[in-house]
Amino acid sequence: MKTLKTIYAEDLEDIAIGGAILGTGGGGDPYVGKLMAQQAILKHGPVHLISVEELADDALVVPVCMMGAPTVMTEKLPQGDELINAFRQLEQLLGRKIDAVLCGEAGGVNSTTPFVVAAATGLPLIDGDGMGRAYPELQMVTFTMHGVSATPMVLCDDKGNSLVLETVSNQWTERLARAATVEMGGSALLAFYPMSGEVAKKAVVRGTLSLCAKLGLTLREARANHGNPVDAVAETLKAVTLFHGRVTDVDRRTVGGFARGTATFTGVEEFKGHSFKLDFQNEFLMAALDGKIVCTTPDLITLLDAESGTPVTADSLHYGLRLKALAFPCNPQWQTQAGIALVGPRYFGYDADYVPYFGAVD
Amino acid sequence: MKTLKTIYAEDLEDIAIGGAILGTGGGGDPYVGKLMAQQAILKHGPVHLISVEELADDALVVPVCMMGAPTVMTEKLPQGDELINAFRQLEQLLGRKIDAVLCGEAGGVNSTTPFVVAAATGLPLIDGDGMGRAYPELQMVTFTMHGVSATPMVLCDDKGNSLVLETVSNQWTERLARAATVEMGGSALLAFYPMSGEVAKKAVVRGTLSLCAKLGLTLREARANHGNPVDAVAETLKAVTLFHGRVTDVDRRTVGGFARGTATFTGVEEFKGHSFKLDFQNEFLMAALDGKIVCTTPDLITLLDAESGTPVTADSLHYGLRLKALAFPCNPQWQTQAGIALVGPRYFGYDADYVPYFGAVD
Repeated sequence: MKTLKTIYAEDLEDIAIGGAILGTGGGGDPYVGKLMAQQAILKHGPVHLISVEELADDALVVPVCMMGAPTVMTEKLPQGDELINAFRQLEQLLGRKIDAVLCGEAGGVNSTTPFVVAAATGLPLIDGDGMGRAYPELQMVTFTMHGVSATPMVLCDDKGNSLVLETVSNQWTERLARAATVEMGGSALLAFYPMSGEVAKKAVVRGTLSLCAKLGLTLREARANHGNPVDAVAETLKAVTLFHGRVTDVDRRTVGGFARGTATFTGVEEFKGHSFKLDFQNEFLMAALDGKIVCTTPDLITLLDAESGTPVTADSLHYGLRLKALAFPCNPQWQTQAGIALVGPRYFGYDADYVPYFGAVD
Repeated sequence: MKTLKTIYAEDLEDIAIGGAILGTGGGGDPYVGKLMAQQAILKHGPVHLISVEELADDALVVPVCMMGAPTVMTEKLPQGDELINAFRQLEQLLGRKIDAVLCGEAGGVNSTTPFVVAAATGLPLIDGDGMGRAYPELQMVTFTMHGVSATPMVLCDDKGNSLVLETVSNQWTERLARAATVEMGGSALLAFYPMSGEVAKKAVVRGTLSLCAKLGLTLREARANHGNPVDAVAETLKAVTLFHGRVTDVDRRTVGGFARGTATFTGVEEFKGHSFKLDFQNEFLMAALDGKIVCTTPDLITLLDAESGTPVTADSLHYGLRLKALAFPCNPQWQTQAGIALVGPRYFGYDADYVPYFGAVD
């Protein structure tokens, strides 16, 4: 297969930053994933990124990811062995060689964790993912909309426990894997959604890892050239600036393992005199300007430090930060009826319909 | 293998009653297990009970059981298919034919659930179990003391979900299986602790199913002959009467999925003027007479209706019931240091050492 790009350890810096931007406030701290991926590449060699079109229709593709809160793993940094174990155990269960590794989620920590498996196995990594962003639940991937079962799934922890799931729906996979992850201490590593090359070509959101790398590079260059980092990122993403202001209040509570809440902002400069409200459940899901909803999931809302352009997570929001909120369009697969059912505002419990910021839904 | 006894559908009545007595207040309502077992026997034919000594050393033995609260399954009574699925899935995973079925727990619902698998597969069922009673957690079996791993374990629910566990300890099996069972709606069916005939001969508590049948028969005959049912049961068990009195108070709370609490009694007849206190965590675990601890886990404490001899569970305890508390000796394996560590009063959080009611520990 033709290598689109070869990824070395130092390239992970940009990818992790880009992953944090696509993480839209959630998706987990990319720092842990980046360290794991860098260790793996230094040990085993670089990773070959390929296009999903390169796959044979009968190729076997397996996404891998970290579930839960990666922060709990920082005390005992995983070497990535658990992720490789999960991958190899699934391969054995499927009874045939896996041909390529895939990202489930390109936002947050899971923009980098699949590099661990690709490096260790020497398999190519597909430049794409199942979201084009981050979402908090396992079934929230384009794969679900293409009828791919999340199971058989292998889930491993850092103690040596593992479980193999077979479920009647991807929602059940989420429920059972979530319960196991919580019991395992809040974090687990998994291989799931085995699919053919044919299905991957239909389902995969293209080019998200390249986009992550480009976003990281854009930010780095804008800083080096004393440019405007936020504007540079916005241009790369074809994003609009929803707001520019200071955090005045953060109402945050933990519900069912998720960080839910609302942040309120007061405008500065071009937004002086305006207010802004951002609802989050791990990820930023809904934005309101002066009390009117202007943008919702599945479109992407990300927060950047107004000066440095550094992406800011929902976890780290606090009084006084001066931030810019950018909105950019989701992958069109999410704008379908099936997509809205999986990840629209109503699924998250908001009494609001999807507001397509970037033009009407088909 | 030589059949010790052939068990027909009607025999399950006695076994279920005996199972409730050995259930020592917990172990789950035997009613559901009995119905499942009777259905299976009527459909597939009777079950052949064998002695564990009949097994070849290299035979493969697998215990099966229901985990959680069987009451939640009464709305949609399982046909037992899930239990057979778990058993067959484990057999496939182990890559060889299983030679005999075993009870994990002879107290409560799981005195009868293994009959479902034995009937459906035509395999013999061993007359024995891993407790000689009921206990609330998966690792609390004699098998653990003989180094048998609870995994690979297969756990199935009534919706069609299943999981295969591989854990680093039987305590971890309990934690992960418990989390999955709770998420599955509170009840699951499992096959676990695969072991050789050689190990089974060391670990199995002998004759518990025969004892269950005998207890049920004893109770039935005493009633038919207008005898004293409680005395008849006590004689069969070589039990002593700890107390005879009325329930004056029940303090019950649900902690981590377990029904914990204390029941207090005031004496009647021969115990007039005395008080009695029973601590339970699903099962009755500690008894105090006039404020002094007289009997604790692992010895067995069971409550019977003073008139009819019907066993009474911790769940159904309420003000005014006139009951007799019997104590009878546990299997000697539980009296070892390893046994006390697994199921002694301190494991359950009581600040008390094991009080051997029936003579000193070796």
